This record gives sequence, structure tokens and C-alpha cells, in this order.
Amino acid sequence: MSKVRVHISTSLDGYVAGPNQSQEEPLGEGGESLHEWLVALKSWREQAGMNGGEENVSNDVFGDATANVGAEIMGRGKFGPATRGPWGDDPWQGWWGDDPPFRKPVFVLTHHEREPLTLTDTTFTFVTDGIESALEQAREAAGDKDVFIGGGADVINQYLAAGLVDELELHVAPILLGGGARLFEGVGPNLKLEELRAIEAPGVAHLKYRVVK
Amino acid sequence: MSKVRVHISTSLDGYVAGPNQSQEEPLGEGGESLHEWLVALKSWREQAGMNGGEENVSNDVFGDATANVGAEIMGRGKFGPATRGPWGDDPWQGWWGDDPPFRKPVFVLTHHEREPLTLTDTTFTFVTDGIESALEQAREAAGDKDVFIGGGADVINQYLAAGLVDELELHVAPILLGGGARLFEGVGPNLKLEELRAIEAPGVAHLKYRVVK
Repeated sequence: MSKVRVHISTSLDGYVAGPNQSQEEPLGEGGESLHEWLVALKSWREQAGMNGGEENVSNDVFGDATANVGAEIMGRGKFGPATRGPWGDDPWQGWWGDDPPFRKPVFVLTHHEREPLTLTDTTFTFVTDGIESALEQAREAAGDKDVFIGGGADVINQYLAAGLVDELELHVAPILLGGGARLFEGVGPNLKLEELRAIEAPGVAHLKYRVVK
Repeated sequence: MSKVRVHISTSLDGYVAGPNQSQEEPLGEGGESLHEWLVALKSWREQAGMNGGEENVSNDVFGDATANVGAEIMGRGKFGPATRGPWGDDPWQGWWGDDPPFRKPVFVLTHHEREPLTLTDTTFTFVTDGIESALEQAREAAGDKDVFIGGGADVINQYLAAGLVDELELHVAPILLGGGARLFEGVGPNLKLEELRAIEAPGVAHLKYRVVK
């Protein structure tokens, strides 16, 4: 069966977004620094339609992390807007403009029903009946490929706590955020992990684990 | 000038001891698992007077981490007993028996005055006037060598927050503790770090940072 995978950038003190997330600072105060290693990469810049960039071992890590993914599940916080709540008459289309970079089915966990939204090659399906339903739909859409849990922390923590994640990779940035959205909150000691690899790269350490079932 | 160094084992969710630390479980529930990588090592076993053990890259990391240290500072929690409080008439001698493994001057931060205690090659000096005083005394005792901040989390966090640490190495165990003594609590985003290295080893990842001043 296809795998359920997580990879996410985190501060050394365990936050995947800084404090006070807002429409202006979707990643919270200081949160942009989490992705400095990533946005400098040639492979990330190519995917975003930009030239240049660095070539180092993080390119391969990022390539591995994004390869063979057939569908993504994200929380309402990642889709936005920061205010959340009901969609209203002129509903939010996501942070990514007319051509979102996902190019695969995306399932958005929300408390508010909404028809699917297609923007260029990406269709967002809004799921109101919980994480297991979203995973079932994402698996179906992904076919033989894997399902990526794209965040935020609360969604990842829910899937980890439910024992539904197979692989977890942390991109540990050498920063402290001091508060914000904390990975592993509420997950607890029953989740058993096996270290698969640890990779040193410029401005980041990549730590990859398998969940032992 | 000599450096102030920290190295400590931490869970992937950022705890250096589990919940409910007690006299029976000084490292809290599940906390012993933090050191599985360490107690398996040949170099650690030699230091503890035992034969055998594994030889892998963690031996070198442990060797680096313990080399050139001239004095240690620890908190009352690390010295014990778990109940803390006044020393009483038959004062606690530490967790380590008649021959503690430190073999260098140790400065214990406490709220309760006490005369120095010498056990074989280790002298414990009890410091009641704060972290800066303890560091001054430890630097004096260490001479040209470095000062090691030996924990627990609260003491390390105080030295980090005060900008008094030069190097920080985390031995990240592939476990979650779900609660306990959390590293970096209250340290906040003003501490600037530079990644020095990340090393993959059996059952642990070693992440080393320099504090940028």
C-alpha cells in the first residue's frame, strides 16, 4: 500500500511556524526563516519558475521528499485565510494565485463545507468529516503513489497521534522561534520511531524516521 | 578565553527528561531511553569501569564532547535528591556513590547553602548566588579548559537565555517523551545559532551549533 509521509521544516526548538500567525505573516513571526535553506535551492526555484539557486545535498533531500507523491492533505490554516471561519460569498482561493504549485489533488480539512476548487492543475477538495475520511479520499486519489501530509502542525500531530503516518522527515533549521505552532504537541510517547538517516546540509539538518507499527 | 559548552541527549520532541521525575526515576518516565545510544558505547562503558560496548561514530562524538572540560556546572535537580529543599542533617551525597565519574570541580546551583563536598576525585561546590557567579567560579577552576553546563534543562535554558553559552550539541534520540523537562523553554528567538555539523549514528543524530554573538 502507498505510504503516508510527512516532511516539514522545523526550528531547533520544535516550532513549524512562529507566534502570531496572521494574513501578513502566514508563518508567524520569524517563521520565514524556517525555509531559508529551501528557497535558496536550485530545485525549489525551478519548481517555482525561477532561475539560479544553490546545488547541494538538500536538492536531493527535497527531490526525495517530493517524489512519488500522488495527493496532499492540508489543514485549513495552511490553505487560509488566517481568519478561518465560514467561506462567505467571495471565498478565499488559497495563498498561491491562479496556478498553485501542487499540481495534484489536495484535500483541505475544514469545519466549513465547500464545493471543490480547481485552479489550473490543482483541485482542492474540502473535507469536513475528519482526518480518516480525508486520508481515505487522498489514498484513492493518489493511486499507487504516496500521500503527503502537508501541515500545519495541528494536522500533522493529529495524523501522528492516530498512528497513520509511515515516514517523517524534519528539516531542522538552526533557529529558535520561542513559540508558535509546535510539532509533536499531544502526540505522546506511544509513537515508536526508527531513525533512517541524518544528513548535514548548509543551514539545515535533515532527520528522517520510520514509524514502527 | 575558554568556552562554555553544552551537550545533552534530547528526545525528538525536545525533552531532556520525561514527565514525573522522582527519586526512583531521576530522568522521569521514559527518560532512560534518552541515553540508550550512549550506554551502549565502548567509550562510555570504559569511563564507567565496564568492558565491551559498541564502537561507532558516536564514540568520537562523545570523546569530543567530554574532552578539554575543566569544570562542570549543574542544577540542584541533577545533583539531587528529587525532593530538593534544605539539605538536612544527613545531607544527600549525589546519585553517584563514593566515586563520582566527574573527576573535576563541579558547581551545583542551589538555593540552600552548604560546605563543599569531596568524594574521591570530585569536589562539589554549592553556589547560592546565581548562574553568573557559578560561571565565574567554574571558569577560574577550569583554567585554560572549557566549562561544561551539565543540565538539567532549566539550568541550560538559563545560561542560553543569558547569552553565556558558546557551543551547543544535541544528541537527538529517536523517541518522543510527550512531556517533562523541555530544552529551550523561555530561551526565545534572540539566540542566534550557526550549524557546525550534523552526524548520523546508530540510534541517535548529533547536531552541533555555535552561538553567534
